[in-house]
Amino acid sequence: MSPSLLVDNIGELVTNGAGEGPLGIRRNAAVLVEEGRVVWVGPSAYAPAADHHVDAGGAAVLPGFVDSHAHLVFAGDRAAEFAARMAGQPYTGGGIRTTVGATRAATDDELRATVRRLRGEALRQGTTTMEIKSGYGLTVADEARSLRIAAETSTETTFLGAHVVPAEYADRPDDYVGLVCGPMLAAAVPYAKWIDVFCEQGAFDVDHARAILACGQAAGLGVRLHANQLGPGPGVQLGVELGAASVDHCTHLSDADVDALASTRMDSTSGSGTTTVATLLPGAEFSTRSPYPDARRLLDAGVTVALATDCNPGSSYTSSMPFCVALAVREMRMTPAEAVWAATAGGARALRRDDIGVLTPGARADLVVLDAPSHLHLAYRPGVPLIRQVIRNGVPQ
Amino acid sequence: MSPSLLVDNIGELVTNGAGEGPLGIRRNAAVLVEEGRVVWVGPSAYAPAADHHVDAGGAAVLPGFVDSHAHLVFAGDRAAEFAARMAGQPYTGGGIRTTVGATRAATDDELRATVRRLRGEALRQGTTTMEIKSGYGLTVADEARSLRIAAETSTETTFLGAHVVPAEYADRPDDYVGLVCGPMLAAAVPYAKWIDVFCEQGAFDVDHARAILACGQAAGLGVRLHANQLGPGPGVQLGVELGAASVDHCTHLSDADVDALASTRMDSTSGSGTTTVATLLPGAEFSTRSPYPDARRLLDAGVTVALATDCNPGSSYTSSMPFCVALAVREMRMTPAEAVWAATAGGARALRRDDIGVLTPGARADLVVLDAPSHLHLAYRPGVPLIRQVIRNGVPQ
Ligand SMILES: [Zn+2]
Ligand SMILES: [Zn+2]
Repeated sequence: MSPSLLVDNIGELVTNGAGEGPLGIRRNAAVLVEEGRVVWVGPSAYAPAADHHVDAGGAAVLPGFVDSHAHLVFAGDRAAEFAARMAGQPYTGGGIRTTVGATRAATDDELRATVRRLRGEALRQGTTTMEIKSGYGLTVADEARSLRIAAETSTETTFLGAHVVPAEYADRPDDYVGLVCGPMLAAAVPYAKWIDVFCEQGAFDVDHARAILACGQAAGLGVRLHANQLGPGPGVQLGVELGAASVDHCTHLSDADVDALASTRMDSTSGSGTTTVATLLPGAEFSTRSPYPDARRLLDAGVTVALATDCNPGSSYTSSMPFCVALAVREMRMTPAEAVWAATAGGARALRRDDIGVLTPGARADLVVLDAPSHLHLAYRPGVPLIRQVIRNGVPQ
Repeated sequence: MSPSLLVDNIGELVTNGAGEGPLGIRRNAAVLVEEGRVVWVGPSAYAPAADHHVDAGGAAVLPGFVDSHAHLVFAGDRAAEFAARMAGQPYTGGGIRTTVGATRAATDDELRATVRRLRGEALRQGTTTMEIKSGYGLTVADEARSLRIAAETSTETTFLGAHVVPAEYADRPDDYVGLVCGPMLAAAVPYAKWIDVFCEQGAFDVDHARAILACGQAAGLGVRLHANQLGPGPGVQLGVELGAASVDHCTHLSDADVDALASTRMDSTSGSGTTTVATLLPGAEFSTRSPYPDARRLLDAGVTVALATDCNPGSSYTSSMPFCVALAVREMRMTPAEAVWAATAGGARALRRDDIGVLTPGARADLVVLDAPSHLHLAYRPGVPLIRQVIRNGVPQ
């Protein structure tokens, strides 16, 4: 039996369960952890004894952030492309394909080092669960090793062989779809929990996307997809049709798209088993100087919203969930509470997990102690590293 | 004699002096430090020996950030006001006056603890020089103690008794101006290097501002001011008229304002002794959801631009210069190089300092080692804590 841990003197505990307001806040609270799980939540004055003790000193404590959308398995960076884009200059680099070339050329250890560096960076910023996608290999061997390396670091791994049609298949996309659905999927399945497609003009059309996602589903993978980022399109409704856990980006939506997403939301007591979450990735709009998604329209329609980083070297090279929370409030008019919920419980829903994103008895003991008295400070103090301590699976990091 | 320090294996050294491009970049460089000063800069392969050694491991090294505009002496926070503003809700709190009340009620030790906490937070984010203003005391005794406490932490202290007319003088602003120019200034002078006025509708008009700044100047203080933040006005031209080191905010400028600022800029070899810098504070626009200043117009006109945080509990509670750099690139269309220059050398000019903001022989040894290969990453990786190590006055922190 591992030692028990008590976190007490919590000025503001965000439980995302029972408590005050949409975040289920409890004041002057304590959390008891045993065997990596929350076993008790209550008033700090009545906290039981434990083997180890963390005094939050009146600070706010949140569930660890759940970043449900990140591309960490790659090589190289695209800083020059970023600088050119910001200056409004044309850039003749290869976009995603630049990263594909560098990733294929990298050794396993180089890829592993990048994943670990970024995962560590995110952990220090409070991310206790991080989904990791493949998608820069785009050969059977390179997708399989990307997922194998991702699986060393996360159980939330996503096969994104359908990220872009690689250059060598540019003239015959049907053949590439066949490869993805056939040998590439077979090689990916042992390491993947999810399948994802970039459904967008210039990437994969709706028929290809449906075919690939259906193959993945048949092989036992859960469905998620990149949709409606760069323009309107059928991706979001395809996601709802297939029972996707999440459709990600959702920047350009029709009323029918919003209705379709809202229709998947059961009443809040029945769990999240059939909800399709809209995962918003404002870091991508920040780093591409694009208009932000209309979060208020989604929230007001009753859609379940998550926030994630989209961490990748091309369009959103941030690993910071606090930064995404601040952007959500400033740019997408989410309230601080809505943004914090979306970055914790929302991310958990987007991964169909009910053991994370909450701090109630039975949940995984993934906690973040802020250097601040309230969750409000994540938006009120933008850019400031406010994560004082991270506890993951009951273990102080 | 203190031990010497060698920082070598610097992949990209931003000198803001001789070298490649506007940042004077040197590749594969090293910096030798003795007695808190840079004494040698050259190729890493030819670096001399030293008592201590920091291996930058190929990372980028920058001059420490110079944050020339911060309000750190206060008590309380205004998180609820921030949340209401973001939600578009009316808020009947007292704005600056709320903070004035809390500050007057605080003990010296409480104020000191806040200054040290925020100064430490900024230092960890690479700020090696930070200006600190008074302005939440607004009595003779409270302004004097604010500056006394500020002076414990910074030599760059600014008397801002003319931040707002306090409630008890609401009906007789002339009397308050008399107080500021008389006993309050006398009590402030021993602790202050600069005088500042919030010249804006609703705060101090141009005649009051001129009178207060002239008194400060006569008492030996340098001039800087808050101007043209909330609307057009005469503040910027008043600053130029008085030879201010900096006019800060500059959000609403006429062509004549821009011309006046540009006219103060001597050719770049003649030093900064008469330049009036335009200091932009994009954290304030972020946190008040206001339009950003037009940095390109200023830069294209030849105005010297600095970036600073405006760190304060009301309108910009960030202490992060990297965040301001990222905002400058995303929102104000500065290039990453312009933004980094403005956050280092620009801040130094705004404080009329030539010993900081540069890494050339003779400069103060204030260095930041990034967790990144290039200064570009400060904008390319928004929100990510990229400061690996800070060296201040030659001492690793
Ligand atoms: Zn993505
Ligand atoms: Zn200010």
